[in-house]
Amino acid sequence: MIDRLFTNAVLPDGRSVDLSIRDGRFAAIGPDLSADAATETVDLGGKLVLPGFVDGHIHLDKSFVGEPWQPHRPAASLRERLAAEKALLAKVRPTAQRADALIAQVAAFGTVAMRSHVDVDATTGLSHLHAVMEAREKWRDRMDIELVAFPQAGILTCPGTADILEAAIADGAEVVGGIDPEGMDGDSDGHLDVVFGLADRRGAKIDIHLHEGGAGGIAQLHRIAARTKALGLGERVAVSHAYALGDVDGAVLDGIARALADAGVAIMTNAPGDRAFPPILRLREHGVRVFAGNDNIRDAWWPYGNGDMLQRAMLIGYRSGFYRDEELAGALAMATEEAARALGLEPPRLEVGMAASFVALEADTPAAAVAAPPADRVVVHRGRVF
Amino acid sequence: MIDRLFTNAVLPDGRSVDLSIRDGRFAAIGPDLSADAATETVDLGGKLVLPGFVDGHIHLDKSFVGEPWQPHRPAASLRERLAAEKALLAKVRPTAQRADALIAQVAAFGTVAMRSHVDVDATTGLSHLHAVMEAREKWRDRMDIELVAFPQAGILTCPGTADILEAAIADGAEVVGGIDPEGMDGDSDGHLDVVFGLADRRGAKIDIHLHEGGAGGIAQLHRIAARTKALGLGERVAVSHAYALGDVDGAVLDGIARALADAGVAIMTNAPGDRAFPPILRLREHGVRVFAGNDNIRDAWWPYGNGDMLQRAMLIGYRSGFYRDEELAGALAMATEEAARALGLEPPRLEVGMAASFVALEADTPAAAVAAPPADRVVVHRGRVF
Repeated sequence: MIDRLFTNAVLPDGRSVDLSIRDGRFAAIGPDLSADAATETVDLGGKLVLPGFVDGHIHLDKSFVGEPWQPHRPAASLRERLAAEKALLAKVRPTAQRADALIAQVAAFGTVAMRSHVDVDATTGLSHLHAVMEAREKWRDRMDIELVAFPQAGILTCPGTADILEAAIADGAEVVGGIDPEGMDGDSDGHLDVVFGLADRRGAKIDIHLHEGGAGGIAQLHRIAARTKALGLGERVAVSHAYALGDVDGAVLDGIARALADAGVAIMTNAPGDRAFPPILRLREHGVRVFAGNDNIRDAWWPYGNGDMLQRAMLIGYRSGFYRDEELAGALAMATEEAARALGLEPPRLEVGMAASFVALEADTPAAAVAAPPADRVVVHRGRVF
Repeated sequence: MIDRLFTNAVLPDGRSVDLSIRDGRFAAIGPDLSADAATETVDLGGKLVLPGFVDGHIHLDKSFVGEPWQPHRPAASLRERLAAEKALLAKVRPTAQRADALIAQVAAFGTVAMRSHVDVDATTGLSHLHAVMEAREKWRDRMDIELVAFPQAGILTCPGTADILEAAIADGAEVVGGIDPEGMDGDSDGHLDVVFGLADRRGAKIDIHLHEGGAGGIAQLHRIAARTKALGLGERVAVSHAYALGDVDGAVLDGIARALADAGVAIMTNAPGDRAFPPILRLREHGVRVFAGNDNIRDAWWPYGNGDMLQRAMLIGYRSGFYRDEELAGALAMATEEAARALGLEPPRLEVGMAASFVALEADTPAAAVAAPPADRVVVHRGRVF
């Protein structure tokens, strides 16, 4: 007895099929499937189905989505930016409500799983984390949410943060965050001792924001790769942004790419608009996993973003000069399978036995959907239509 | 007697107003306007209204919009690209039908006027131009379309093209196009002699594609500015792309910016994804008009684009690092007032007496609309709802 039958779907490979669902998973995929009279049938009308999207990097505690528009305030330094952010966040609804509004928005675009960084520092304590955990609980049946305890203000330069990080992991964050070990904290080894020590002790994953460019950033990446390998944390460590990878080329790039691949360190990019970022194809050639995330969405850091991972895939392709179908499909994979693997999730696949989470939209092929993301979506999560 | 009354609109400055329309123009804008019983009333429900969008650079004859997806074919040279384009265009519907499909798509996003380049060369002759003119005629009441006779394959290197350009202007194209006078034709003076000579003789405008980077491109811009000034063609000459402006800085940039401003040469950019492009704010500071266009939309040149000028404004802001409200509004102005002025059109303004062409959408402010363009639009052109 199947729960639901979706008819007239087009798979990414172009086959026209029906999709039958049982217990939230694909029970059969093929042409002309039959349903019991009692089975609910949904006609997808020839729409293309894509796996549900995975956002590898979002900040659920920062966004103003659902709030009145907050004009961006320029800041001359990171300290000024953090102060401006605190002032703006004090004017809007509590974190749990804003996180809820953002999750609702991204869910409507077709995101089914995400990794959210959440600020923890000595003054914020665990308040953001607990608020986002409240929103996560509300969305438990609809969205897989993994949380990163993110020391936005630094670890060593913000005394007490190491203890808060430990408490955050104890309380339910799955990932230890870090930020610019040298550029922010001025002590790479000290910073990484805290991050890797905590992850190793607690069995947590790691995701480090690295904005440092050029040779300095490459040096940090080598340190992160070396520690990952030494502790056997392969496939459990990611570096977000890693702008330095966009600043170098030739032997330097090949060297760090080999080290990252060998250690199993993944790289997250959102394809920033006005600065260099990691060369995706070159990294992939070396075996480095590169995945996508939206990063900030309409918050104190910048005004852009709507949370749509298909638009993010478009921006990644646009910024990377991806024109060919396989390149466009690769950008989409960064927002589906690659992100899922980076998060340690079952990859979202349109195959019998896999979770029936998918997005149906009007496009001829996955490449077409990435090149010009259609607005209208039918979103299905574990067999349920949303 | 007014034709139509739109209630509950929010103007870009935040005022809540009604908009009454007579003969396709704003008859009154203010709170609580009253209507005759017979007047059609449309409740905009608090939506933000923006002026209708103007696309300063589109290629109506090239697009595959409305056709089955055509995978991008890599090409090693411009000649290869042109051959691939001809092969692909031979497989799809005739130019007039494809132009029609693209106009319909961009009209639905809120574009009310555009400048379309149309290929003319010795082998194509005027066939593309006549086809696009056929589509233009069909859309006469809905879209202001200006046509550029565009020598895509060069002028001097494609013998016979100069005569075809002349015939195109005689047949109804308003603008003489050009392309890379030195990089393509290898004879800057020879190329510009044809373009400026024809424009001067026929009273036509000029819009030159300039992809040449660095010092070579800057030299071409100086030549174009000098000829514009010498012929008194200020405000009637534009250079599209002008990538070289993104390659230089300091005194070189200041020098060419002053020359362009002094001559009245406007610059069009689509904010390409993976290469340097003109620094918009720096050019504006010098008084250079900078306007926006979509350029290619899903064609043999690249797979991206949906024709939405609001998304184009977002991409321009994203690529330019525009975060503040006034910067985001400036990106929008490039797709409205600045583009209109570059095309010599009445600027689209939400003022009594102006054409009642506007777009209503769910956003708090123009900056918010640019930062994350909403998909749902109410499009009104000369008072009619589409």
